Amino acid sequence: VEPLKVGICGLGTVAQGVLSVIQKNTALINRRAGRIIEISVVASRNPRPEVDLHGATFSNDIFEIPLRNELDVIVELIGGEDDASKVIKLALENGKHVVTANKAVMAIYGEKLLQAASASKLSLGFEGAIAGSVPIVMNLTEALIANEYELIAGIINGTSNYILTAMEKEQKTFQDALREAQDLGYAEADPKYDIEGVDAAHKLSILSALAFGTSLNFEKVHIEGISSITLNDIKYAELLGYSVKHLGITRRAENGVELRVHPCLVSSEHLMSRVEGSMNAVLVSGNAAGETLLAGPGAGALPTASAVVGDIMRAARSNFMPITVGESGPHILPIADAINPHYLRIPSLDRTGVFAKVATILSDYNISIDAAIQNEQIAVDEGDEGWVPIVILTHAVSESIMVEALEKVQKLPDIVGSITRIRVEHLGTDSK
Amino acid sequence: VEPLKVGICGLGTVAQGVLSVIQKNTALINRRAGRIIEISVVASRNPRPEVDLHGATFSNDIFEIPLRNELDVIVELIGGEDDASKVIKLALENGKHVVTANKAVMAIYGEKLLQAASASKLSLGFEGAIAGSVPIVMNLTEALIANEYELIAGIINGTSNYILTAMEKEQKTFQDALREAQDLGYAEADPKYDIEGVDAAHKLSILSALAFGTSLNFEKVHIEGISSITLNDIKYAELLGYSVKHLGITRRAENGVELRVHPCLVSSEHLMSRVEGSMNAVLVSGNAAGETLLAGPGAGALPTASAVVGDIMRAARSNFMPITVGESGPHILPIADAINPHYLRIPSLDRTGVFAKVATILSDYNISIDAAIQNEQIAVDEGDEGWVPIVILTHAVSESIMVEALEKVQKLPDIVGSITRIRVEHLGTDSK
Repeated sequence: VEPLKVGICGLGTVAQGVLSVIQKNTALINRRAGRIIEISVVASRNPRPEVDLHGATFSNDIFEIPLRNELDVIVELIGGEDDASKVIKLALENGKHVVTANKAVMAIYGEKLLQAASASKLSLGFEGAIAGSVPIVMNLTEALIANEYELIAGIINGTSNYILTAMEKEQKTFQDALREAQDLGYAEADPKYDIEGVDAAHKLSILSALAFGTSLNFEKVHIEGISSITLNDIKYAELLGYSVKHLGITRRAENGVELRVHPCLVSSEHLMSRVEGSMNAVLVSGNAAGETLLAGPGAGALPTASAVVGDIMRAARSNFMPITVGESGPHILPIADAINPHYLRIPSLDRTGVFAKVATILSDYNISIDAAIQNEQIAVDEGDEGWVPIVILTHAVSESIMVEALEKVQKLPDIVGSITRIRVEHLGTDSK
Repeated sequence: VEPLKVGICGLGTVAQGVLSVIQKNTALINRRAGRIIEISVVASRNPRPEVDLHGATFSNDIFEIPLRNELDVIVELIGGEDDASKVIKLALENGKHVVTANKAVMAIYGEKLLQAASASKLSLGFEGAIAGSVPIVMNLTEALIANEYELIAGIINGTSNYILTAMEKEQKTFQDALREAQDLGYAEADPKYDIEGVDAAHKLSILSALAFGTSLNFEKVHIEGISSITLNDIKYAELLGYSVKHLGITRRAENGVELRVHPCLVSSEHLMSRVEGSMNAVLVSGNAAGETLLAGPGAGALPTASAVVGDIMRAARSNFMPITVGESGPHILPIADAINPHYLRIPSLDRTGVFAKVATILSDYNISIDAAIQNEQIAVDEGDEGWVPIVILTHAVSESIMVEALEKVQKLPDIVGSITRIRVEHLGTDSK
């Protein structure tokens, strides 16, 4: 068999990881792939003479690589959206298999790119785009393929999870935890993309399309980040038996598909609550398999390279199936239709009768209370100026009703600050 | 495309699960498989007229099914070893793809069967043989294929995990927990196969061969079950920061491959310690991916059917790769070479100086002590007759040295009963 000739566009962290994995596992990779996998050329606009290309040639023209006749596979690792999608498009047009770890490109242009790949019987692998070495794409599209999917819920942004874990385990404030994440290189200097949920929304829109056959609906994802979560919320959640996790959730409901990224209270009994630090985890609930959970390193050069090289090897073995999305799927439900229990933290004047007033309003909207805490002692920087937090856990209620009720509560003269509301997500543990 | 015609041998729980999954997910299964999947015939020596075969014909001759010209795939779900392996062999000889959920057959005859399948370019799917709906076979043979594997460690027997969890969470004795598992149908009337580790050893020998290319070495697995674990051990382990889990472990060491099934102390900080009840979980450590963990229902009609139907669909799509084992692998290390920290519970007379004598012997063998407990209060039914348990956690030491040292300790006149020894397994959490 001829060697498989690969061109890599990009020479950043992940590209270097790919070079390194192929170098150190050469013998087993060639044996398992059934042919030699040869990195012929690496292209980047930023030459890095210090990187050992292990015999590959270098080009500074990323757009030339997809056109080269001798190449079988183009690996897109340049990041960004426009140039990356152009490279992928060119490669598919020129009959090359493509592997990418670019979630933004897949979330925005993925549908057309997958159609193009499928029409030309080419592989478009993107396992590395979602959760590092966690093989969620293959599990959704192959291993669990006999299932009607009911729910995909995942910790799919390692930076956010790192920060929330540092808050929970080390009692750090959000700001301190963020700074620590930045110092350790987990968070970018401008961390908005991660902590405001955009990165997770990119990944979730891909997972939702894979699971439910919907279009790639990045623009319809309801997105909330973690910057409004305080250490107090984490402590109250813990008292109530929950951890605060930032989840991407997509669920098949009666009239459509839910698609939302936001902080959640997750039961401390559920495995998901124990996924810590920069680790990622995705729970898949199917009507035959029950709930399976896949966890592992969600980012990093080598874990992402593990997924990328796996995709290259599948192309080498011609062992891939077309992935189609957007064919048949149900529509995306607005966030107003989501039904969840809610955690509420209501800053109120420290006087009798306030709780009763709040409870009365909730009751008027048929929102029942599951648990409540009024305990100043665990609060940090609260209660200093004559106010106390009322913490309430409600039973499940539709988002729109909750929002309406809270508007009324917020207007009570006893309420001295903005109400914090966090959805509670019951992930369950039983197979159905 | 022609429909894929399937014959099922067996009509027990899993076979009924397969019929049920194909019935309820017909539309999506046919769409995703790209062709109609038709169960043509079901064969069993025990007719069950009460089971709806959804249009399939019935035969009471399981050996006739693999010979039928019109069938494309034979699904072996009869259990046992001899007849089941005969059915699979016949099917492969007659050019049929095969799907099985039979771990015993795969552990014992798998190597030859995989060779036969590979030589005839046929699929032999056995995802359902290992951990129910947890897609560990596909992850090892495809998704994580770029990795040199370092360690596979799994909770791969749901019955044992159910019992250990009931002991830990509900303070049940082993006997009470076992009885409960039997009442709930998790454990057989004769539970030996599960609780003595044979079932886990079957599965582990398959995982080890997949990961390390060794032969299927069921007969070389070091096997210990959970029947010697007491509630006291679980309580002491908890005090020391560990849970007791029954793991199958296979690890690449310098001179070969470790292959062992036994109870372990697993750090309470590790996700594996939170895998509870009848759930299964497999941790895969690779030199690129780092540590990934897959968890889910390890048994049951529908979860196993999820894996079996997935394998049928892969055959329908001609989307499978030959799996070869036994080609090149390193040899299996004897248990004497294993290096672990150990938990020791030493029943001793309640008098001063005993601990010093024990510590001196350990020290003579260069075994250092990491932690120790002498605390009667948490013990159940211990210390009643003038004796107390000495509980010691050691640092890592080779099994053979530990065994030798403990022979000496056991002979001390102050030691009044058999010493309990449980290996501590450091699974780690970082990617390398």
